[in-house]
Amino acid sequence: MEGKVESLWEEVRELSLGTTVDRLHSPPTPLQFLRDFVSQNKPCVISNAISHWPALSLWPTPSYLSAALSSSTVSLHLTPDGHADALVPHPSHPSLCFASAHVQPTPFPQALDLIRRPPNHLVAYLQQQNDCFRTEYGELASDCDGHIPWASEALGCLPEAVNLWIGNHLSQTSFHKDHYENLYAVVSGEKHFLLLPPTDVHRMYIKQYPAAQYSYSQEKGEFRLELEEPERYVPWSSVDPCPATGNLKQESLKFPLYFNGPKPFEVTVKAGEVLYLPSMWFHHVSQSPGDDGCTIAVNYWYDMQFDIKYAYFNFLQSLPCRSIDDPTTPESACNEHEKIPTTIMPLPARPQYRNCHLERTAVCYLKMVATLEILGNIFESGVESLMSYGGR
Amino acid sequence: MEGKVESLWEEVRELSLGTTVDRLHSPPTPLQFLRDFVSQNKPCVISNAISHWPALSLWPTPSYLSAALSSSTVSLHLTPDGHADALVPHPSHPSLCFASAHVQPTPFPQALDLIRRPPNHLVAYLQQQNDCFRTEYGELASDCDGHIPWASEALGCLPEAVNLWIGNHLSQTSFHKDHYENLYAVVSGEKHFLLLPPTDVHRMYIKQYPAAQYSYSQEKGEFRLELEEPERYVPWSSVDPCPATGNLKQESLKFPLYFNGPKPFEVTVKAGEVLYLPSMWFHHVSQSPGDDGCTIAVNYWYDMQFDIKYAYFNFLQSLPCRSIDDPTTPESACNEHEKIPTTIMPLPARPQYRNCHLERTAVCYLKMVATLEILGNIFESGVESLMSYGGR
Repeated sequence: MEGKVESLWEEVRELSLGTTVDRLHSPPTPLQFLRDFVSQNKPCVISNAISHWPALSLWPTPSYLSAALSSSTVSLHLTPDGHADALVPHPSHPSLCFASAHVQPTPFPQALDLIRRPPNHLVAYLQQQNDCFRTEYGELASDCDGHIPWASEALGCLPEAVNLWIGNHLSQTSFHKDHYENLYAVVSGEKHFLLLPPTDVHRMYIKQYPAAQYSYSQEKGEFRLELEEPERYVPWSSVDPCPATGNLKQESLKFPLYFNGPKPFEVTVKAGEVLYLPSMWFHHVSQSPGDDGCTIAVNYWYDMQFDIKYAYFNFLQSLPCRSIDDPTTPESACNEHEKIPTTIMPLPARPQYRNCHLERTAVCYLKMVATLEILGNIFESGVESLMSYGGR
Repeated sequence: MEGKVESLWEEVRELSLGTTVDRLHSPPTPLQFLRDFVSQNKPCVISNAISHWPALSLWPTPSYLSAALSSSTVSLHLTPDGHADALVPHPSHPSLCFASAHVQPTPFPQALDLIRRPPNHLVAYLQQQNDCFRTEYGELASDCDGHIPWASEALGCLPEAVNLWIGNHLSQTSFHKDHYENLYAVVSGEKHFLLLPPTDVHRMYIKQYPAAQYSYSQEKGEFRLELEEPERYVPWSSVDPCPATGNLKQESLKFPLYFNGPKPFEVTVKAGEVLYLPSMWFHHVSQSPGDDGCTIAVNYWYDMQFDIKYAYFNFLQSLPCRSIDDPTTPESACNEHEKIPTTIMPLPARPQYRNCHLERTAVCYLKMVATLEILGNIFESGVESLMSYGGR
C-alpha cells in the first residue's frame, strides 16, 4: 500500500502540479481559471488582479485604518506564542492538545497597536473567520472588491465568507485544509505558504487531539489553557514543518512520510498578489510584516464542489497507512474515519473541524445553506449568527 | 479494502452523480459545461444543441449519403456477430481472446447497403476511429459542425479527432474507457449507453486477453479468427452486461462486483441529442436504427486533462481487489498494472490499448503530439498515418 500511495504523490506532481506554483501576471479569464486551476485542483498566484483596490495604498497607513474603524469593536485572538488552532503541550494532559485562542472583543485601534507593538508573552491576531470583513470590518467595504469577479464567474457563485487577517511575524497557522475554494489577497506585508495537495493526506499524520481553550486574564497578564468540557477531540495534523533548531531529526523520525517525501510547495504571496488555494489542499501559513508592522490580507471563501475529486480524497484518507520507516506505527494511526470518538462536537462549528469530523454532514449542511439562500434572506439573519462561532 | 472501495462507489453517487444522467434542454454555456460537468467528471445529455445541422434532415435519407459519398472508399469493419473489439472464444486458445474486426476498404454505397440489409453471419459497421469524419468522409463536412463550439471553448481546444459511426442493431461496443473528453452526437436512430464512473474500475474485472484478428474471405464467405503474432495482450473488461438468456446467474457469480453493485447509468441518446461522455468513464454501447435502417452518429474527441482526478484513478486501479463473494480470486486479478506481460504492443496504437497499458507513456505521447502540432503540420502528415491503425 505504501508504495502505491507514494506513487500517487509522485504522479500528481509529474502529470499536473510540477515543482512550483504557477504564476499569472494578469487575472485569468473565468474559463481559464476554471479549466487550468479549479478543475485540476491546482494552485496559482495571480499578480495585478487587485491593483485597483484603494486598500493597497490606504491600509499600510495604520492611522487610516484606526480612523476608519475608530468606533469598531473587533474579535482579537490572543495566544502566548502566536500558535492558535495549533497543537501545544498541556500541563495536565500527557499528549499534545489542540488549543484555540482567547477571543477578546477589543476596540480596533487598540487591537492594531497590540499587533504592531507586541508586548512580551502576548501575540494578538485579527483572524476571525466568520465572514468578518463584511460584518466587523464593514467600514472598509469600499476599499476593496466584495468578491473576485473572475473567480465568482468561474465558480458560479459569490463568496460564502470574506475574512480580514491582520497579524505580525509571530502568528502562524498550522497545517490544515479547508472545504472551500480560497482566493487569498495580500494587501500589506507577505504571507508564506507551505502547500501539499490532498493526495498527500497520509503525510499529514492527522490524529485526534483533545480540544483546549486559552483564556487570558488581563489583570494577571497570564494565559490559562483548559481542556474543553465535555471532552472533545479534533482531528489535526501532527506535523510541524518548521521544528525548533535541533528538533528536526527527532521530528523526521516521528513523521517520516512528511519529512522524507516530496517537499511542500513553497509560495510567498506579496502585497498586491492573490493566491488561489484550492479546496482540500493542506496549508501552513506564516507571515512577514510590511513597513506598517503588520501583514494584512483578505480572503474569499467560495463553496467547493463535492464531486469525484472529493470522493476520491475520502477514499484515500480512509485507507490505512503505515509509516515506511516505522513499521511499528499502528495501521489505523492515520485513519481518522475510524477514530472518531463518541463525543462529537455539535454542528455548526468551525468549518475545518466540522468537515474533518463529519464530512457527509458538512455536505448536507452546505446544501441546506444553499437552500436557505434560495428561500430568502434567512442566510443574512440566521446562518450568519451560527457561523459567528468562528472557524478558519 | 473492499468495503472502502464500495463506499467510494456509493459516495460519488450520493454526492455528485445521483441516479440518472442530467438532461439539459439547451446547450450549456462553456462555463456551465466546464463547471458542472467536465470539472466534476459527470456526464449529461444535451438537447437542441445540433438542431441547425443539415445532417439531421439529410442523412436519414440513404440515397443522399450514397450520392454524396459515391466515389468514397471507406474502412468497413466486419465481424460475424457485431462484436468487434470484444472478448470472444477462440478455437485453439483456452481463454477468451480480444478480437478486432476485419477492416475492408469498401465503396461507401456498398458499405451502407451491407449495414442496412445485413446478410447472414456478417455484420458491417462503419466505426473507423482515426478522425475518419475529417478524412474518409470529408464530403459530408458541410452537413454538421466541425466541432462543438461550447465544448471547444470550455476545453480550450479543438477536437483531436472527429469520427463517424454508421451501424445497425447488431453492432455493440463492449465496456471500455477512453482517455478523451467525448461529445457524442446522434444523427439518426438511437444509441444506448451503459455508463460507470472511473471510481468503479474494480467492477469491470479488467484482465489481460490475447489479441486476435478476424479475417474475412469474400470468396468463401467465412471468417477466421487468428491470434496475433507476436503474441500481444490487451487489458479489457471481462464483463458482458447483457449476457445471453440463462447465463445471468453464472455471470453474476463470476463478476459479483459488477452485477451486485450499483446499477450502471442507462442513457438513450436520440437523434438530435448529444451525450457528454466524460474521460475515463466506462461505457458499453448498443444501438437501434432509425427509419433508414441504421444508426448514425458523429463523435468529437477532445484532449483530457491528466490532472489529480487521473492520478487518483491510477492509484485506485493499482489497488488489489478481491471479489467479496469469491475470496478465492487472486488479489492481483484486477490489477492490470502488475500484470503487464513482457510483450508490450508498440506505440502508437489504438488509444484505449495504448492508455490502458502504458498510461504514463500515453501522456508523454499526447504531450509530444501537442508539441508536434506547435512545430508545424507534422500532425497532418505523420501522426495521422500512425493513428490510422484504428482505435476507439
